[in-house]
Amino acid sequence: MSVTDDLLENNARYAESFSGPLPLPPARKVAVVACMDARLDVYRILGLAEGDAHVIRNAGGVVTDDEIRSLAISQRLLGTEEIILIHHTDCGMLTFTDDAFKASIRDETGIKPQWAAEAFDDLDADVRQSVARIRANPFVPRTDAVRGFVFDVATGRLNEVK
Amino acid sequence: MSVTDDLLENNARYAESFSGPLPLPPARKVAVVACMDARLDVYRILGLAEGDAHVIRNAGGVVTDDEIRSLAISQRLLGTEEIILIHHTDCGMLTFTDDAFKASIRDETGIKPQWAAEAFDDLDADVRQSVARIRANPFVPRTDAVRGFVFDVATGRLNEVK
Repeated sequence: MSVTDDLLENNARYAESFSGPLPLPPARKVAVVACMDARLDVYRILGLAEGDAHVIRNAGGVVTDDEIRSLAISQRLLGTEEIILIHHTDCGMLTFTDDAFKASIRDETGIKPQWAAEAFDDLDADVRQSVARIRANPFVPRTDAVRGFVFDVATGRLNEVK
Repeated sequence: MSVTDDLLENNARYAESFSGPLPLPPARKVAVVACMDARLDVYRILGLAEGDAHVIRNAGGVVTDDEIRSLAISQRLLGTEEIILIHHTDCGMLTFTDDAFKASIRDETGIKPQWAAEAFDDLDADVRQSVARIRANPFVPRTDAVRGFVFDVATGRLNEVK
């Protein structure tokens, strides 16, 4: 049995006690952009209930065109007003460089990815530039309430980056 | 007080009973790609514990270059082997078209986004083409265990798309 099959059995148990449906627009009017890291259970970290907030996640919790697309849809069509950006300690993105990662893919496949891998070497600095990417973008209308944090995987605490 | 401030108070309570840190590589060797929809608490839906799986999320749960970037990092650097793709019923992406959304942004800002909004009108068909995008990409090495689902927001159940 695959891990996926095992997780589907968990889902059957989840559905047994499910009470839905909830409304489509996020109740707390917040969008979160966080790293995909397995240790970040964003709903628990922020005390979110189902239906409270959009949760956008990727390798690093970085801001590329796809996060701008998601944030534009979140704010323009579904009414969110605040943005919480979350990087974290012990992040995989601190362990490699774009050049080395893309060279390894090129060596194996014969093709160099046309995208940036978005590795970084300074957590706080990358939170700041990620917030700056959102603020500089013309398609995200509300950027007065964008705040950036580093989640500490040793303590469970969010530390704000000013 | 902003909603963000309120959620930070939740985080302080979360940190009080936090036991970490866990290892960086996902214990169950799974990556999930799901919609950002507020009603999808992915950890609960799949019965995931902290540390189990990478969770990648965006508007629609679609596959663009940024999801390929995240999946490539997930598999090549952090050892995941299976991929679970999740769209859901009552999705916001069913309620607009790329053309109308991008025209509304152009009318307001004077600039038309260079990216696709990735709206769709058929859930099952978009799950299938999202799985196909992963399988067709040269940068994601393991594509033998990619499965796609539609989460039913009324029942809590994942229904597989074949």
